[in-house]
Amino acid sequence: MLGAKLAVTPARPEVLLGVGDDAAVLRLPHDAVVTTDLLLDSIDFTIAECGYARAGAKAMNKNLSDLAAMGALPVAAFVSVALPPGIERGDASALLDGLFRAADSAQCAIAGGDTKRSPSGLVVNVLVIGRPSGDSLLRRAGARVGDVWVVTGPLGGASLGHHLDFVPRLQEGAALVHHGATSAIDLSDGLARDLRLICAANGVGAVLDADAIPLSPDARLLSVTSGRPPLEHALLDGEDYELLATLPRDRVIGALADPRLAAVRVIGEVVAADDGITLRRGGEPVPLPHGGFRHRFGGDPS
Amino acid sequence: MLGAKLAVTPARPEVLLGVGDDAAVLRLPHDAVVTTDLLLDSIDFTIAECGYARAGAKAMNKNLSDLAAMGALPVAAFVSVALPPGIERGDASALLDGLFRAADSAQCAIAGGDTKRSPSGLVVNVLVIGRPSGDSLLRRAGARVGDVWVVTGPLGGASLGHHLDFVPRLQEGAALVHHGATSAIDLSDGLARDLRLICAANGVGAVLDADAIPLSPDARLLSVTSGRPPLEHALLDGEDYELLATLPRDRVIGALADPRLAAVRVIGEVVAADDGITLRRGGEPVPLPHGGFRHRFGGDPS
Repeated sequence: MLGAKLAVTPARPEVLLGVGDDAAVLRLPHDAVVTTDLLLDSIDFTIAECGYARAGAKAMNKNLSDLAAMGALPVAAFVSVALPPGIERGDASALLDGLFRAADSAQCAIAGGDTKRSPSGLVVNVLVIGRPSGDSLLRRAGARVGDVWVVTGPLGGASLGHHLDFVPRLQEGAALVHHGATSAIDLSDGLARDLRLICAANGVGAVLDADAIPLSPDARLLSVTSGRPPLEHALLDGEDYELLATLPRDRVIGALADPRLAAVRVIGEVVAADDGITLRRGGEPVPLPHGGFRHRFGGDPS
Repeated sequence: MLGAKLAVTPARPEVLLGVGDDAAVLRLPHDAVVTTDLLLDSIDFTIAECGYARAGAKAMNKNLSDLAAMGALPVAAFVSVALPPGIERGDASALLDGLFRAADSAQCAIAGGDTKRSPSGLVVNVLVIGRPSGDSLLRRAGARVGDVWVVTGPLGGASLGHHLDFVPRLQEGAALVHHGATSAIDLSDGLARDLRLICAANGVGAVLDADAIPLSPDARLLSVTSGRPPLEHALLDGEDYELLATLPRDRVIGALADPRLAAVRVIGEVVAADDGITLRRGGEPVPLPHGGFRHRFGGDPS
């Protein structure tokens, strides 16, 4: 009863047939892709440090990144917000600004939602309805031995700010579908872990080229204070929100010529499961002391 | 990154094409009705008093009631939950049970969601995608002078428990569309306030028959402790979640013969705006001392 319905963005008027009284009436794709994420202050961001605009942008972009990983494009988003007691009007506006700007950038309508007061901290739930960008969708399953691993941008050090300010790789995801990618995931838990998820889903292994993994400036910056090599940050840090995908070898040249994939780098090869997951430099295995490839380099994870 | 995706209910396997890795792939109605509500402990329920199963049921049914008010039927629901620290496994199960039972009762699939830990109390966001039950949808706008007002069940005293245990009036909403209802709303803020919303949306007034308004047993029970007449509870209490609708006069007999509308009662008539909103008993105006029809009986609301 305390709820008030969010205003509607005009970003995609063609999908919105009308706003009912407690519901939106939408023209939806017949086969829809739906993703949702719940974000909370002190769990997903620290509002006192990042501010409301960046929290709003992250809540929207995290969902859009899930669509990107499937090669889907957004149609409409629904946003539920619980605002902390005593929030200033400017902060509430900044939150909505962050949400709307991120949605607008992706040509996604915000078609409805709910606003409540929170008994404690900020809560934001975003759900996005999307459509396939092409004839099929990308999944974790599908990678085949002989495919190559690609990433859509530099990795590591996202905790310095990128985890709030990343751009969801929607055009890259659509381009990857177009060029025949066999599997994909958005990198939320770090390259090493997310790559293992794809390997597990397909019963395959991986050989990565240590020199080919693109390092973000933040991976290098964080390395100075952490004392760990930038490559380790690129492998183990979470929340890059770049896409990791597999491409058939004979599609790589075509894909790399696509301007939407200008930042894509080939970082390794899909191999048989028996060959495990290895990192190499000039053909020689590179050991990694901390986590990530533990089953290979650091003992059995418990 | 702490998120785990909810399992999927098999209630409507025909709508679910597959579960992606961070997204559900659904077969959706082309013209969809989407509603969402965010519920929080100590705002929408007191979990220590009502328990997790009833909180889960309420979160689902509140959304289904919004669909019912539009004459829509549910297709798929998405549920995001933030669980309080230290929640017992049994309580988490009870919450999901409440959500799933309510969805199953309405033949609604739970097609996806997100689970997080909450820094404080329970948070539940439910979004339901529905479809029109017939050729059109019900809205608040549409009531015409000469129509009759109907409600789908007895009113008042929901705070004694009904606000947690109500059944969303989905079949009633579908039947009302079928029988040509001109407007509808689900009663969340009390008959008096919600009726005024429909009057305002249509530029019409209302004459209600005090003896025709169905009183719930809880309205009578609450009357004993509140010292206010049961009728006042029926008019002013919130969260009945019955439907208030308007029907053309020549459709009433047909509608009341529909078994789905067996509990429906005619409670008054739509009149011109100039005639205001009045309550009558045997043709004489009945004054109401507290709220609700204040602009008529209790002075100007401030």
